[in-house]
Amino acid sequence: MSFSHAIALTESQPGHYAGQIAEGWDIGGNANGGYLLALAANGLRQHLGRPDPVSITAHYLRPGKVGAAAVHCETVKEGKRFATARATLEGPGGAVLSVLGTFGNLEDGTAGPTQVRLEPPALPAVEDCFPLGSGSGEGFAPSLMDRIDARLDPEDAGFRNGQSRGIPEMRGYFRLPDEDPCSVLGLLLGLDAFPPTIFNANLPVAWTPTVELTCHLRRRPAPGWLRARFVTRVISSGFLEEDGELWDSTGQLVAQSRQLALVPKVAAP
Amino acid sequence: MSFSHAIALTESQPGHYAGQIAEGWDIGGNANGGYLLALAANGLRQHLGRPDPVSITAHYLRPGKVGAAAVHCETVKEGKRFATARATLEGPGGAVLSVLGTFGNLEDGTAGPTQVRLEPPALPAVEDCFPLGSGSGEGFAPSLMDRIDARLDPEDAGFRNGQSRGIPEMRGYFRLPDEDPCSVLGLLLGLDAFPPTIFNANLPVAWTPTVELTCHLRRRPAPGWLRARFVTRVISSGFLEEDGELWDSTGQLVAQSRQLALVPKVAAP
Repeated sequence: MSFSHAIALTESQPGHYAGQIAEGWDIGGNANGGYLLALAANGLRQHLGRPDPVSITAHYLRPGKVGAAAVHCETVKEGKRFATARATLEGPGGAVLSVLGTFGNLEDGTAGPTQVRLEPPALPAVEDCFPLGSGSGEGFAPSLMDRIDARLDPEDAGFRNGQSRGIPEMRGYFRLPDEDPCSVLGLLLGLDAFPPTIFNANLPVAWTPTVELTCHLRRRPAPGWLRARFVTRVISSGFLEEDGELWDSTGQLVAQSRQLALVPKVAAP
Repeated sequence: MSFSHAIALTESQPGHYAGQIAEGWDIGGNANGGYLLALAANGLRQHLGRPDPVSITAHYLRPGKVGAAAVHCETVKEGKRFATARATLEGPGGAVLSVLGTFGNLEDGTAGPTQVRLEPPALPAVEDCFPLGSGSGEGFAPSLMDRIDARLDPEDAGFRNGQSRGIPEMRGYFRLPDEDPCSVLGLLLGLDAFPPTIFNANLPVAWTPTVELTCHLRRRPAPGWLRARFVTRVISSGFLEEDGELWDSTGQLVAQSRQLALVPKVAAP
């Protein structure tokens, strides 16, 4: 099932949208957080009649299981350039996400002055990067990875063989299949589709549950591969932040993200 | 008026809190965004009965003017360790902030493994930094700056005399007056109390209105000065991000923030 089908919604009554947490967008049975955010955002953009999330935040309340889903939207403010609304994504068992977002039309952007102090990640050629799908026949290959096309910089892929780089970063390429090129909502998926940075931290932590994810979208992506970089700078006090960037094929920063995740105590051996 | 008085609220009915957007916490007549967020957070912590925001996001809807204020709270989820709720802060004229936050008790933190790849900013001695209050008798001295104690690294203070550093950063010290030491809600103020990074970008932009501000709080601060760093890496497509950090006197990262702000087109001369 394509991404655009997997986030499809129909209005059941004003402000309420019905759809599915679709099969095949999960990691070990729990739907990917970026996919869930895109599903909720799809409700909000229809509700507000504005195509693009500019800033959108989700708090993760429970795992998203496959099944019937509903997005309940409530307008907070209608402005001239932007509109703000909140939403709840419900899935089997109850509320999965609580979302707050401001939407607009990124093509209306007033191109102000530019100053860029970051570069897109320097990556080897796509064919020299490590495909994350199960086609690769080994290791980290959740079901999600067969729906998208994600390739990891070999420098960041050692964790798959127990040889993590020791630096909590993940860099690589991302795209959706050709028949369903990456829309602005696809960026929300891309911002949460890579393995967690903790896998490269060389710490005895197996998973870092997301408390909250915020995505800032600056422009609609040009066709082609996106370059992605995810960086964690401080793991402390039981938390970490993970900062993401997506750059399009023209070298423009199209989206940024930051998430707060929990760093569980190391399990007793 | 002290910070704790300025964010004081009384419950008017379950989930609804009454207070003031207090005088003296503004910049040119509009209340500071961190102060407004702390006011809303104070309602949420009372509503949820949990002392500390862990992750809290505000979307800025209209300027906060001095006068009667109300915080309307709605629980989204009550969990064992955390609870999530949303709130609207109303001030004179209508809704000022829409807020979504997850709260808990930071002293319950499960201290997992630690890896820190950032340092607190290296600053000159406090007495060699530039006080931002009007006591300094010149330049950038909004009313807010007399309520707090903020000192700017001289390297980042040149914008006051039209000599910006050319790098959109602000570094300095922050504290609240002795009689009202910095609580965890004071961190929300500190994360938005410095001049905007754009002042040091050497670009013809006078102001960058905040669309959204997210704060992550990791621990309650130890007494003493906080060290602050605000960095903007990408100004593009009419937007910028501003990433903030606060480090306490023991060298621990206590809070991080990211805001999305608009970069207006340069005004015609």
